[in-house]
Amino acid sequence: MMREIEEQPEALARTLGEEFGRIEQFRRTLERRPPSVVALVARGTSDNAALFGRYLLEMTTGVPVSLAAPSVLTLYRARMRWQGALVVGISQSGESRDINLFLEAARRGGALTVGVTNEASSAMTRVADEVFLVRAGKERSLAATKTYTSQLLMMYLLAYALGAPLEPRWLKKIPAQAARALKHTSALRALAERCRYMDHAVVVGRGLNYANAFEFALKMMETCYVVAERFSSADFLHGPIALVERAFPVFVFAPPGPTWPGTRAMLVKLRRLEAETVVISDATNASSFDYAPRAIRVPGRMTAPPGLPADLFTPIPYIIPAQVFTALLADQKGLNPDRPRTLTKVTKTV
Amino acid sequence: MMREIEEQPEALARTLGEEFGRIEQFRRTLERRPPSVVALVARGTSDNAALFGRYLLEMTTGVPVSLAAPSVLTLYRARMRWQGALVVGISQSGESRDINLFLEAARRGGALTVGVTNEASSAMTRVADEVFLVRAGKERSLAATKTYTSQLLMMYLLAYALGAPLEPRWLKKIPAQAARALKHTSALRALAERCRYMDHAVVVGRGLNYANAFEFALKMMETCYVVAERFSSADFLHGPIALVERAFPVFVFAPPGPTWPGTRAMLVKLRRLEAETVVISDATNASSFDYAPRAIRVPGRMTAPPGLPADLFTPIPYIIPAQVFTALLADQKGLNPDRPRTLTKVTKTV
Repeated sequence: MMREIEEQPEALARTLGEEFGRIEQFRRTLERRPPSVVALVARGTSDNAALFGRYLLEMTTGVPVSLAAPSVLTLYRARMRWQGALVVGISQSGESRDINLFLEAARRGGALTVGVTNEASSAMTRVADEVFLVRAGKERSLAATKTYTSQLLMMYLLAYALGAPLEPRWLKKIPAQAARALKHTSALRALAERCRYMDHAVVVGRGLNYANAFEFALKMMETCYVVAERFSSADFLHGPIALVERAFPVFVFAPPGPTWPGTRAMLVKLRRLEAETVVISDATNASSFDYAPRAIRVPGRMTAPPGLPADLFTPIPYIIPAQVFTALLADQKGLNPDRPRTLTKVTKTV
Repeated sequence: MMREIEEQPEALARTLGEEFGRIEQFRRTLERRPPSVVALVARGTSDNAALFGRYLLEMTTGVPVSLAAPSVLTLYRARMRWQGALVVGISQSGESRDINLFLEAARRGGALTVGVTNEASSAMTRVADEVFLVRAGKERSLAATKTYTSQLLMMYLLAYALGAPLEPRWLKKIPAQAARALKHTSALRALAERCRYMDHAVVVGRGLNYANAFEFALKMMETCYVVAERFSSADFLHGPIALVERAFPVFVFAPPGPTWPGTRAMLVKLRRLEAETVVISDATNASSFDYAPRAIRVPGRMTAPPGLPADLFTPIPYIIPAQVFTALLADQKGLNPDRPRTLTKVTKTV
C-alpha cells in the first residue's frame, strides 16, 4: 500500500501525458453533442471518485449530474430513458459486471457512454463508446490508492472535455503537488501512534472534498477496521454531531474557499464539545490549524487560478497524507493493509 | 418520539386523503410537460426520503433522477442548466435556507419546481411552483419519524404524478400496513435490552430499502449515540465488510424481491463471520429469518401487485419497527430521544 501511495505522482503524470490528446478530441465531440445530463456509475473507491466528479462537473459546466444506482437496472430491470445523456462508468478493474451491464443498457437507451478503467484489456473497454485509461499501473494492494487519485484526475479531464474553463497548464501542475504532498511523514507517524487504539471515528468533508471524506473513511474501515462514519459538514450538523463526546475523534477536511466558513463554524462547535479534532489543510488556509488540537498539514500551497474556487485543486494533494496516515495506522495496529480480512480485489456485484 | 411513531398511520391517511386530488392534477400537468430529468434536494432525514424517491422514480418511470448537492449552488455559486428538469425540494420545516435557495435558482434556471413540506405557511411554500403538504401534524421530537414516512408516501405520489403504473387503490393500503407494523413490540423490547451496551453497528439495505438503512442508522446516531454505518449490500461487500468480527452487530433489511438473492449471499457471509446479524423482514420472505441469529419481524404481509417488484411497498412498514426499536434502545440507555445533545430542530444550513 505504501509503495503504491508513493507511485502516485508518476501515475498522475502518465495518465495526463497519455490521455490528454484523446480528451481534446472528445471535447470537440461533446461540443457538437452537448449532453443534457451526465450520469456517473461506479462502486467502492471508484464511486468516491464519481462523487468528486459530481461536484466538479456541476460546478464547472452547469450540467446536472446524477450518481447512478446500478441496481435500478441490474436488479429491478428498469428501462431508463437516456436520450441526450452522457453515462460514465468508472472501474479500476473494468470487470465490475453491474457497471458494464449499466453501460450497455445506457448505450441501447440512447446515451453516449464512456468507460474509465485502469485495465486496457478489460470487459469495460469493449462495452463503452469511448474509453479513457487511468495509467496507474497494476494495483496490487487491496486498498486502492493510486487508482483513486488517477480517477480524480480523470474527472478534471472529463470536466475539461465538457467545456469547463480549466486550462491544461493548471492540470499539469497536479503531479508535482502530489509529489510534495508525500513529504513530511514524521508528524503523521506520531499521529498514527496516538490513534493506536482508535476503533471509531468520523470524517467530515464538504463540496469538492466530500468525496475525500468517504474515501478516507473507507480506507480506515478496510485496512484498520476503524468504524469510520463519513459526512458532509452540513449533514453532520443535522443530526450525527450528537455522537460527539469528549475526546471523540473527528477528521475534518478544511480547505480554503467556499466551504471554509461553514467548516470553521463546525470546528468551533467541535471545540466546545472537546472532540479530538484533526484538521486536514494546507498553508493557503493556515488559520484553520488554530481551530483544532491536531492537524494533518498538507505540504505545499494549493492555490487556485483567480475566479475559480480556492479549493479547486485541493482534493488530490489532501487525500495523499490521509492515505499515508491510514497505512501507518494499520502498521501501528499490527495489520496488513494489503490483505484485509474478508475482501477480494475484483468484486463482481450484480 | 414514541407518540409520534404511533401517529404514523393517521398521518399517512391524512396526507393521502388531502393531497391526492392535487397530485392527480399535477399528473395531467406533467403529461403535457414530461421532464427529462428529476433532481431531488434535501438534508438530513428528508434527504433519506429523497434517496428512496431516487430509486422509486427511476424504477417506475425511467426518468433519470439526481440527488442534488445544494452546496454546488449555495457555496460554489454554479449556474446550473435546468431546462426541462423537475426539481423537488423536501424539508420538514420548509425553512432550510439552502434548499429554498436551490429551488429559487432552479426555477430561474428553467426548472419546474415542487416543494414538499410539513409546514403550510413556511418559506418553501412561497418559492416553489407547486407545493405538496406532508400532513403529519406538528413534529415535536427532534428525531423525525412521522414526517419521514409521510415523505416516503409523497415519493409514491410523485411517482404516480410522473406516470408510474401505481394504482391509487394500492397506495390506500399503506396506512393500514403502517398500523399493523406498530404491533408486536415485546420482542423489540427484548432486543433493545440486549443492545443496551451496543456503541457501534452497521445497517445494510439495498434498492428501495437503501434509504431505510440510512434512516435507521441516523436515528440510532441521533438518539442513542451509536456509531452506526449505513451501506448498500453491494458497497458493503466492496470493502467495509472487513470491519465485521465475531459478535459485531449488523442490521439487514431483507425484503422479498429483486434484492433478496444478493442479501442472502451477504447473510451467509455474515454467518460465517459469526456476526450478530439482525434481519428485518416480514412473512412474505419468512425464510430470511433462517439466515441470522436475531430478527425484527415486521407484522403483516407486504405483498406487491403482480408484475411489480415484491419489495415495492416494504419501505414504510419496515422502518416503523426500526423506529420503535430505536426509541426503546434510547430508553434502555437512559437517554431522552426527543432532546439529543447538541441538536436543534430547524437546521439552517447554507
